[in-house]
Amino acid sequence: MEKLILIVNDDGWNAQGLKVLASIASAMGQVVVVAPCNGRSGAACSITPAMPVIVEKISSKQACKAGYAANITVYSCTGTPVDCVKIAREKILPRTPDLVLSGINHGDNASISLFYSGTVGAIVEACLKGYPAIAFSLRTRNKQCDFSPYKQVAQHWIGKILNEGLPTGSCLNINFPEVQTLKGTSFCRMAKGIWHTEWIETNSDETAQKDTLNEIHTYTLSGVFENLEPEAEDTDYWALDHDMASVTPLKLDMTDYALLSDCR
Amino acid sequence: MEKLILIVNDDGWNAQGLKVLASIASAMGQVVVVAPCNGRSGAACSITPAMPVIVEKISSKQACKAGYAANITVYSCTGTPVDCVKIAREKILPRTPDLVLSGINHGDNASISLFYSGTVGAIVEACLKGYPAIAFSLRTRNKQCDFSPYKQVAQHWIGKILNEGLPTGSCLNINFPEVQTLKGTSFCRMAKGIWHTEWIETNSDETAQKDTLNEIHTYTLSGVFENLEPEAEDTDYWALDHDMASVTPLKLDMTDYALLSDCR
Repeated sequence: MEKLILIVNDDGWNAQGLKVLASIASAMGQVVVVAPCNGRSGAACSITPAMPVIVEKISSKQACKAGYAANITVYSCTGTPVDCVKIAREKILPRTPDLVLSGINHGDNASISLFYSGTVGAIVEACLKGYPAIAFSLRTRNKQCDFSPYKQVAQHWIGKILNEGLPTGSCLNINFPEVQTLKGTSFCRMAKGIWHTEWIETNSDETAQKDTLNEIHTYTLSGVFENLEPEAEDTDYWALDHDMASVTPLKLDMTDYALLSDCR
Repeated sequence: MEKLILIVNDDGWNAQGLKVLASIASAMGQVVVVAPCNGRSGAACSITPAMPVIVEKISSKQACKAGYAANITVYSCTGTPVDCVKIAREKILPRTPDLVLSGINHGDNASISLFYSGTVGAIVEACLKGYPAIAFSLRTRNKQCDFSPYKQVAQHWIGKILNEGLPTGSCLNINFPEVQTLKGTSFCRMAKGIWHTEWIETNSDETAQKDTLNEIHTYTLSGVFENLEPEAEDTDYWALDHDMASVTPLKLDMTDYALLSDCR
C-alpha cells in the first residue's frame, strides 16, 4: 500500500517551505497537507479549547495556483499546528499516517527555541499519537529563501524514517543553516541557551494616558539568543554555526528520573 | 533579604486557585502576581511574536476587592503564561525571583496533558531562565472548588524549594485529586496516555452552505483521556486515581540520548 504522509507547519498552508516539503514527500507517498490558515509562529503545543476551529479543503484549482502538484490534497485550519494534527487524524485522513512532517519552518528551532515552536509542537503531537514524525526548520530571516540546498538531506531522512520508523515516544528535530552547500549532517543534542532582552516598549496612543501614571505598558516581543555552551561540538547550535544540518532526536517523557530517584 | 516569589497561571489573574497560592506564598516572602487578563488554558509554551502585549498594574483597591491581601502586587497581561514570566523578569520584578509558582490550575496537568498546559508552560519558561519553579493543578471541573485540602502540601513544597532550590533545568509538576483529605503524596513519573475522540462537529450557519459541498467543517475540541498504563503504580495518574497528590520532577533537556547514541 502507498505510504500516507501528513504535512503540517506553523507558517500557514501557503508557505514556501511547506510546499518544498510536500513536493519532496509526494515522490514517496500520498501527501495530505493540513496546516494553519495563517502564520502561527510561537504556537508551541498550544490547542484551541475555547472556540470552534474551522477546516476548509482548498480547491484543487487554488492549490495548483499556489504551487501544489495535482496529487496533493490541502486543508486550511483556523487552529494551531497541534490542532491540525489532531483534526487530520480524527476527521480527514482515511487511516493512520505512516509519517508526519512539519515545516520547513522559516527560522531555526534549535536549542530551547523548540519549546516555543509550533513546527516542533506539531511533531510532539504526532509523536504523542504514536506516529513517526520529523520537524524541519531553516535558520533564515529571508522570506524568499532558497530551499534547494536542503532537498537531498530532507529526502534522505523522509525515506529513512518511512522505511525504518522511530521508537515510540521519540521524534526528530532537524535544522538547516542558510548556506549554498551543507558541510554535512551532525547527530546532536539540544544546546543549552537563553533568550535575553526580549521586550521592546511600544506604547500606543491608547495606553499613553494611563501610562503617565505608570500603570500600563505595551511591549513587543523581540530577543537575543545566547548559546550557553558555544565550545561544545555536540550541540545543534554548533552544527548550524558550522554550516551543517543538525539532527536531534527528542524524547517526550519529560520526567526527570535522576531527581525522581533522589526524592524517593 | 526577604524571598521574592513570582506567581503566574493560565486561568487569569482573577482566578480562585491563583489567589489561594498567593495567600499561601505571602507568608513566606514578597509575592508579585503577573498573570493573563483572561483564561489561557491550552496555551502550552506559546509566546506572542506578532502583536504587542499590554501589561497593566491592578490598583490596590481593585486587587483588594478581588480578594488579594494588601501586600501582594498584581499585574494583568494580555499575553500567554510564558509571556507573563518573560515580562515579569525583564520589566516588572526588581531582581531575580527566588521561586516561580504557577496555578493552582482548575483541571489536572498530569501525564501528557502537561504538553498543552499553560500552567506548566509558565514553569518551563521559569526553569529555562534558571529559576526554581513549581506548577500546581487540581483535578476538578468545579469552578467553585474548595482548595483548603491542598494548602498544607502546597505550603510544604513552596517552603522546601525556597530553602533548597532545584537542580538547573529541572522543575516540579504537582497535581491534586479532588478529595476532602489527601491520602498522601506520591513522587512519580508522567503516565503514558493518549487523548481520543477529540473533536465535536459544530457547524455554524455561516459555514452551512459551503458545508453541503463537503469543503468546510467546524469542530470544537473535546476529548477523552486514556491512561495507557493503568496498572503502573509509579505514575502521576495512578496517584490521582488513588486520592494522592502527585509530585513529578520534569527535566527540560528533551534530547533522546539513547536514540542519539544509536544514530552515531
